[in-house]
Amino acid sequence: MLNDRNWFVTEDCFDLNRQNHAETIFTIGNGYLGTRGAHEERYRGEERTTFIHGVFDDVPIVFTELVNAPDWLDLSLWLGGERFCLTEGEILAYQRQLDLRNGLLTRRVDWRSPAGMRWQLTFERFASLDNPHLVCQRVIIKALADSSLEVRSTLSGEADNLNYKHWDWIGQGIEGNRAWLHLRTRATGIELGTATRLIICGGSGYEQIGWDTRNAPTLVNRLEVKGGQTVEIEKITAFYTSRDTAEPQKAARQVLETLPERAWNDLWQSHARAWEREWDACDVLIEGDDRAHLAVRFSLFQLLAAASRQDERVSIGAKALSGYGYRGHVFWDTEIFMLPFFTYTRPEIARNLLSYRYHTLAGARQKARENGFKGAQFAWESAATGEEVTPTWVPHPTDRTKLIRIWTGDIQIHISADVCYAIWQYWQATADDEFMAERGAEIFLDVARFWASRAEWNAERGCYEFTDVIGPDEYHDHVDNNAYTNALARWNLITALEILTWLEGYRPHKAAQLKQQLELSEPELAHWREVAEKIYWKQDSQTGLIEQFEGYFQRRQIDLQALEPRTQSIQSLLGIEGASEANILKQPDVVMLAYLLPDLFDEKTLQANYEYYSARTDHTFGSSLGPAIHAIIACRVGKADEAYEHFMRAALADLEDVRGNAHDGIHAASAGGIWQAVVFGFGGLRFDPQGPTTSPCLPRHWKRLAFRLMYRGRRFEIDLTNPQATAGEG
Amino acid sequence: MLNDRNWFVTEDCFDLNRQNHAETIFTIGNGYLGTRGAHEERYRGEERTTFIHGVFDDVPIVFTELVNAPDWLDLSLWLGGERFCLTEGEILAYQRQLDLRNGLLTRRVDWRSPAGMRWQLTFERFASLDNPHLVCQRVIIKALADSSLEVRSTLSGEADNLNYKHWDWIGQGIEGNRAWLHLRTRATGIELGTATRLIICGGSGYEQIGWDTRNAPTLVNRLEVKGGQTVEIEKITAFYTSRDTAEPQKAARQVLETLPERAWNDLWQSHARAWEREWDACDVLIEGDDRAHLAVRFSLFQLLAAASRQDERVSIGAKALSGYGYRGHVFWDTEIFMLPFFTYTRPEIARNLLSYRYHTLAGARQKARENGFKGAQFAWESAATGEEVTPTWVPHPTDRTKLIRIWTGDIQIHISADVCYAIWQYWQATADDEFMAERGAEIFLDVARFWASRAEWNAERGCYEFTDVIGPDEYHDHVDNNAYTNALARWNLITALEILTWLEGYRPHKAAQLKQQLELSEPELAHWREVAEKIYWKQDSQTGLIEQFEGYFQRRQIDLQALEPRTQSIQSLLGIEGASEANILKQPDVVMLAYLLPDLFDEKTLQANYEYYSARTDHTFGSSLGPAIHAIIACRVGKADEAYEHFMRAALADLEDVRGNAHDGIHAASAGGIWQAVVFGFGGLRFDPQGPTTSPCLPRHWKRLAFRLMYRGRRFEIDLTNPQATAGEG
Repeated sequence: MLNDRNWFVTEDCFDLNRQNHAETIFTIGNGYLGTRGAHEERYRGEERTTFIHGVFDDVPIVFTELVNAPDWLDLSLWLGGERFCLTEGEILAYQRQLDLRNGLLTRRVDWRSPAGMRWQLTFERFASLDNPHLVCQRVIIKALADSSLEVRSTLSGEADNLNYKHWDWIGQGIEGNRAWLHLRTRATGIELGTATRLIICGGSGYEQIGWDTRNAPTLVNRLEVKGGQTVEIEKITAFYTSRDTAEPQKAARQVLETLPERAWNDLWQSHARAWEREWDACDVLIEGDDRAHLAVRFSLFQLLAAASRQDERVSIGAKALSGYGYRGHVFWDTEIFMLPFFTYTRPEIARNLLSYRYHTLAGARQKARENGFKGAQFAWESAATGEEVTPTWVPHPTDRTKLIRIWTGDIQIHISADVCYAIWQYWQATADDEFMAERGAEIFLDVARFWASRAEWNAERGCYEFTDVIGPDEYHDHVDNNAYTNALARWNLITALEILTWLEGYRPHKAAQLKQQLELSEPELAHWREVAEKIYWKQDSQTGLIEQFEGYFQRRQIDLQALEPRTQSIQSLLGIEGASEANILKQPDVVMLAYLLPDLFDEKTLQANYEYYSARTDHTFGSSLGPAIHAIIACRVGKADEAYEHFMRAALADLEDVRGNAHDGIHAASAGGIWQAVVFGFGGLRFDPQGPTTSPCLPRHWKRLAFRLMYRGRRFEIDLTNPQATAGEG
Repeated sequence: MLNDRNWFVTEDCFDLNRQNHAETIFTIGNGYLGTRGAHEERYRGEERTTFIHGVFDDVPIVFTELVNAPDWLDLSLWLGGERFCLTEGEILAYQRQLDLRNGLLTRRVDWRSPAGMRWQLTFERFASLDNPHLVCQRVIIKALADSSLEVRSTLSGEADNLNYKHWDWIGQGIEGNRAWLHLRTRATGIELGTATRLIICGGSGYEQIGWDTRNAPTLVNRLEVKGGQTVEIEKITAFYTSRDTAEPQKAARQVLETLPERAWNDLWQSHARAWEREWDACDVLIEGDDRAHLAVRFSLFQLLAAASRQDERVSIGAKALSGYGYRGHVFWDTEIFMLPFFTYTRPEIARNLLSYRYHTLAGARQKARENGFKGAQFAWESAATGEEVTPTWVPHPTDRTKLIRIWTGDIQIHISADVCYAIWQYWQATADDEFMAERGAEIFLDVARFWASRAEWNAERGCYEFTDVIGPDEYHDHVDNNAYTNALARWNLITALEILTWLEGYRPHKAAQLKQQLELSEPELAHWREVAEKIYWKQDSQTGLIEQFEGYFQRRQIDLQALEPRTQSIQSLLGIEGASEANILKQPDVVMLAYLLPDLFDEKTLQANYEYYSARTDHTFGSSLGPAIHAIIACRVGKADEAYEHFMRAALADLEDVRGNAHDGIHAASAGGIWQAVVFGFGGLRFDPQGPTTSPCLPRHWKRLAFRLMYRGRRFEIDLTNPQATAGEG
């Protein structure tokens, strides 16, 4: 629908000091794999990675991680006998550009070699969204004088994860213009087959050689070029794993055989069409704020590029497939922050992501059992199997005799409710009763059972409590009766009972089967109701304030303003203990709760809690999950300027690296939060029985906000204009 | 002097199930590098490693480790188009043999390929002792019918340490029959240059190709062979690091240029002569027990192969250069177990090894300071700098939330005295006053200062104590007044004062300079004397027993016999806590003390303590350091049979893998202990003012024991015969 200029992320100079940030920004992907934007030629300090969904392997300390697959970008160019390398010679012109419409990454370089020869090169790459096993490269080279060209392309099995190797060699080969490599992960035994084909057009005196070096089969091509002529290199690489097929190495070789002699154009067209369909379902238009508009599109692109369309046994990690941060582990980030975008625009993908939790129920049940509880307790960090993979101890940065204990995997229990919340939201948005009946209900019931077994009866107070937990605000651990956790647990128990009642009507046989399978008795269900009714909950009737956890109001008061300007988090400034003793939040649990369960908050309560907690939150260097949600609630309480400030803090986390950590990978939760801030915050979207409706609260300089939605099988276009828009940014 | 058959370690069948043990056994080295006995061609599960002394790099958990250098063994042979690999086709004959006289490792294979072609191959390799930067290989191949041969040799920069990578690529190249590679360690920035030359003689239609694959430059040679003819492959590889020279890559390439066209014979002759000189200084002859004789020679070979002759900034790790065990870290194993062999046969090497401690004094001083003490406290595990590198926490084998705290780096303090003991022993044996004056005295004085500051005054008892320590027996940690530690500390303080007095006479200027540099005052020296006189010491006047530490006699009594037969250590059986509460020893501190400071033990005391502790020691699966020392004291109390049993337990630890862990690398301390058991135990060697004298206690079936010694600059040959020898083993 929308044709405008805010589709291009551009880099205008070659700067190795920010190469890792640029690699994150220029990550491309197709839901099967993601590849950071390393250059074709190699540079010191690069993080040259391709992650394939579900390909995890064991590693010390963090237990398991997505494995860096063999690099498919490698192209070593010898121009007139000189190795093409931008740290040598002179760069006469340089531009790199990611086209968000289709994930085409283009680099244009005008280079004078150390010996003074001038070359113009254009590099292109994309990861096919049409056939996600294929990744494609093209290089167009123009020599300005007669010269020679040598092109080397290596499939290397030596890819490592920040020094750690996961691959064992099984086999390899070279046949004409094709090379293949067969590997296996060392601990998990996942096989990978990759094959590549290199074709060169133009030039003369063509010579094709294969270097069958062990674990690094290399295709070498030599030719003569005339000044002014162009040579075109086309390289297509295929990846399959034993998660996809029994003989991945065979599959990778075979798919290349089906390609025409020149494949780029066909592959490109079907790929671009696939992306067109994606944007057709979900694009957002912002007029009057190009910077925000580009950031929103960038966020959606990264989410679309990371979400599997074929595999419902994988989810999206906290850094998607774009960096080593959190090692590919899946957090509540997916359900609460990323999923709404998919639920309301690409529900098929949302269903896949939720099914990941269904397929990892065994891990969640094991975790509950090991902790002495019943039902299913989802892992705080989850990978291939759903087992808990949060690191328990990490090295202290300065004291070799000390370690830091990470408690989130033990006691950050709200995630189980978050998973259910996302299922419920999906069900509300799609009316996919089939999913709820066949998968969602089982999750809901077994998580409810966990909550009931985890609740502790306090006879003195006459209520059920959840003590020794961590809420979303991780500056405070080992707290009792966290408001967010308690409210979600109550909601989870009540909703599970409602779903069971619904299922007994909708599909009685399934309800009976589930009750039998889970051995659900009437007394147990009655106990759930009893727990839900009596969960500890406290709100100050005077002020309307909900205490984030018991004793929060007594924590040491810190004047946040007095600490500005800061370049690090409050936890870094005060230390783990110091931050825990203080009243500053990494992110505000009560504001988050107001977003998820708005019925708990009347207008006065919302206002009071927003004001109170907003002033006590580390917005700049606390959790990257907070700002987008803050923006939404700011809209609800009518603070458009504040909302915009929070929103831009989220929107620029990756593109402008405002938190200084984008080199670890994109902030995928924030990316999802940005969409929610646009749609539910500025757009003021809500769903009445009649369907979607809006109460917009647009930033004053936004002239127009338009977006698309799917709701209960129907497509909606929301188009909001702001006739009073002022001239503003962008 | 000695010409007999006990020089050959032989393997008669190809068995991948024990390949890692065989790699350890067939380790070769030249004091600059050590290379495990992996095959030229690759097999799954192999540990293909070359360690170069001093080349350490950072790694998680164990802090630093010797880095696996690029593999120089790699030779991939394509015989008539089929890849030579012993898991394919048929092995008609196989033998591998290490010649301990010169470290030549030979493998002879008669192989029928899968296609039925028959080939006879002889592989040879040695690491030049004459020029330790050179390692040499030769392969002689005989085709039994006309065929073709392709030889590939790769220098790969992808060597990893048990999955962990340490090398960054800097550069590489191929020039004719030579390839080179330039790398740098990732954290410590040590550069390595390696270059290799491949020459083939015989055959026809010779074609030479270079595959310049990144980080894996490969030399490829193709030729035709006639049936019955032999082809000879000669491959010479050079290694230099930035620890040796400013431009290691240049040095490695240049040294190859100095070689004649065929270099094997010259290199071999100078190498073999160098080994001849080594054995001339230290060989041991045992008649009547070939098994023991070979084991002794194997031990000495491994020590000689690991000891640097050029570099006094390195020592020998607990596994020498033969495996990943203890990651190349240096323990008291070197000073107390390995050094005497060098001190009494190759004092120049002993001096190098002791100088390592002199050069790491800064690390020892830092450790004392960080622990709140004065002087120099040597690291329990030491690497390049002398900083403490004992791992502090290691993962629990079964519980992901738990870690095991390793305390030895904190409180196993006896090592500082052990270092001084070895210096003193060296000084006694060599009369090297220069070393004592210029290096030894400084170490002695600063360690004495550590002991005086570490000693705790117990006013109630009126004595100085060392509480919360670990003695050599590591089953018991956090103990008070460990007999071994207290006695060595006292000895260290007294001897330091004696050495200072000596130095004031021998070289007054140096004594004055040291006192100034260390700010040694008379009151401080008086305090040392006071501490030494009043260190806690307790011996039961009735039984003569010395309690290993306070409260040891009250630990739970365990009947060792009742637990036999065992296949694991007492600590594995009872757990860390269980073993600590019990009275079984990993190795007997008091028996060890009786060996080092015999004057503390009259005959009755020696007898009583030997009997008592021997019955309470985990000889089979406790410390591998214990049996050799036990053998010596058994000889002193006249128990020749018991001595022999302990001795063989030590002697077979590697060759016959009696402890089941030789795959991690050789037991270098045990290897040194074996020599001491032979010389000081069975030989009964001691030093009178007139020189060496012996009181032999030979195993009954030994017909003759002969060995060589250096003592105060003079060479001695000891030749002991046993006219009553019975026919026995061997």
